[in-house]
Amino acid sequence: MNNVLAVDIGGTRFRLGLFDSEGHRLLLSEGRTDPSGGREWMLSELRKRADDLMARSDQHVQSCGISFGGPVDYRRQQVSSMHVSGWEHFGLSQWVEDTFSLRCRVDNDANAGALGEFHYGAGRGTESMLYLTISTGIGGGVICGGRVHRGKDSMAGELGHIRVSDSGALCSCGDRGCLETVASGTAIELRARGFARRKPEMMARTVELAGGNQITAECVFRAAAEGEEGAQLIVREAAQALARALLIAIRILNPDVIILGGGVALSGPLLLDPVHEYLGECSAPMLKHSTRVVEAELGNYSPLYGAAALALEAV
Amino acid sequence: MNNVLAVDIGGTRFRLGLFDSEGHRLLLSEGRTDPSGGREWMLSELRKRADDLMARSDQHVQSCGISFGGPVDYRRQQVSSMHVSGWEHFGLSQWVEDTFSLRCRVDNDANAGALGEFHYGAGRGTESMLYLTISTGIGGGVICGGRVHRGKDSMAGELGHIRVSDSGALCSCGDRGCLETVASGTAIELRARGFARRKPEMMARTVELAGGNQITAECVFRAAAEGEEGAQLIVREAAQALARALLIAIRILNPDVIILGGGVALSGPLLLDPVHEYLGECSAPMLKHSTRVVEAELGNYSPLYGAAALALEAV
Repeated sequence: MNNVLAVDIGGTRFRLGLFDSEGHRLLLSEGRTDPSGGREWMLSELRKRADDLMARSDQHVQSCGISFGGPVDYRRQQVSSMHVSGWEHFGLSQWVEDTFSLRCRVDNDANAGALGEFHYGAGRGTESMLYLTISTGIGGGVICGGRVHRGKDSMAGELGHIRVSDSGALCSCGDRGCLETVASGTAIELRARGFARRKPEMMARTVELAGGNQITAECVFRAAAEGEEGAQLIVREAAQALARALLIAIRILNPDVIILGGGVALSGPLLLDPVHEYLGECSAPMLKHSTRVVEAELGNYSPLYGAAALALEAV
Repeated sequence: MNNVLAVDIGGTRFRLGLFDSEGHRLLLSEGRTDPSGGREWMLSELRKRADDLMARSDQHVQSCGISFGGPVDYRRQQVSSMHVSGWEHFGLSQWVEDTFSLRCRVDNDANAGALGEFHYGAGRGTESMLYLTISTGIGGGVICGGRVHRGKDSMAGELGHIRVSDSGALCSCGDRGCLETVASGTAIELRARGFARRKPEMMARTVELAGGNQITAECVFRAAAEGEEGAQLIVREAAQALARALLIAIRILNPDVIILGGGVALSGPLLLDPVHEYLGECSAPMLKHSTRVVEAELGNYSPLYGAAALALEAV
């Protein structure tokens, strides 16, 4: 009958929510992440907003769950971040316990998103599922036998780093041709910018939508929706690489459902229609499968709901 | 304290074993499969040999497990076979129960091999593992949270059909560039035969070892071990494709261990040394993993031991 606190720390936005023991969201507090503020800025935001939410809770708040948008060592309950200073090997759960006297469990945003969709979204009632978050980068979380499968090094579900492209583009991980080099928001932007330089006539609308600023993935999707050839080409290549990766995941895991979340995946049918088309074309008759591929039901809130599930597990 | 009966029905050989409740093998009966005999021949062999083993058992035999070298619908406990007649939608477990009055559980040889290694071989004490059987074809079994993960359509672990080669060779599944088109025994043979026709000077020793018959994978491995350039090239390409597939499996599952079984994988360091080399080269610093890749400890008997584990589960 108690409530729990859920926190989603992302590179662009952060969110806190108060949830009841059934996973209903009672209160929400959202803000924009200031990357230059580093760890200290974020922790002071969390302290203020969590205190506020807990003060407004009608029930005792018994535990906390956190989705962290960066690598998490789940066993040690430590986070780290490549991009923002101060997070290296930081015991975030311990900090919550020390600060709020709440038991806490932290996991990365992909596993949290998977948990959220599993308990409260498109994965309800499944036995196994894969959740992919496609935004700046690409992360994934695996649920197997009804539980998060984190793997030996907390590295399971890293679909962003399987090789699906023969382009040979170098990935941030050091390998070449990873899914992330074609289908992530960052990749779509980089490809669009390069394309706009080389073939400006095919990307005029995308450039116009950017309005003098750097082209964003959002501009590319909007221009593609309006029919611009160059933008459509980039989106189609992303969709095809994504479909290849999904087919590989189906061969290995054959989950009940694959759930796509994150800004890029949630940009709508422009990406997902060709993904379904390609998956249909590749369904080998000898290897029939009935894995469904759907959008995240909880939209951008899958990780926050997952954080609530982590909090409820931590009780 | 009772014993169990284990059966391994393969395309080339079949095996029956009597096991105690701790998984120790007490008696063994092996034979060569006669594919032209179809289902009836195999069932009559099983009947005779199983009766014999059970008559010689010092304990009551309480259940039976079967590893089947072909597709198995685990939920329905039905087998089918592409190659041998009479097995389509055959209720093999039911036949065992009717014939021997033994409870029975059947699974495909890849899942059975995984179970065998998990309980009695190189996977003992792990939480998650992947077993690959590389022989005529390539199959795989996934263990997750200590249990076989079969997937929605009993199709999990199909690593033979993930695309790892840009060669574009058509696979039996209808897709192109699957691992099976490069690294299976059949693929190695086909490639060697083609190579021997086009570049006979590079394959002279392989052809000699075949002694006037069709080149087999075994000839290729022997010639490669003796230093023949053409044979080494074919083995190296197989190893590289296999390593690419294993790296993908590590990204998705990050299991404690990957165990390689089946005739091709068990042909020794010639295949596995370059696999380890390639995996080492590709270990991206941002994605460090500690998944081990090892040979099956039970050799060709992993599926039979897995059948014993199935029998013990069926009790």
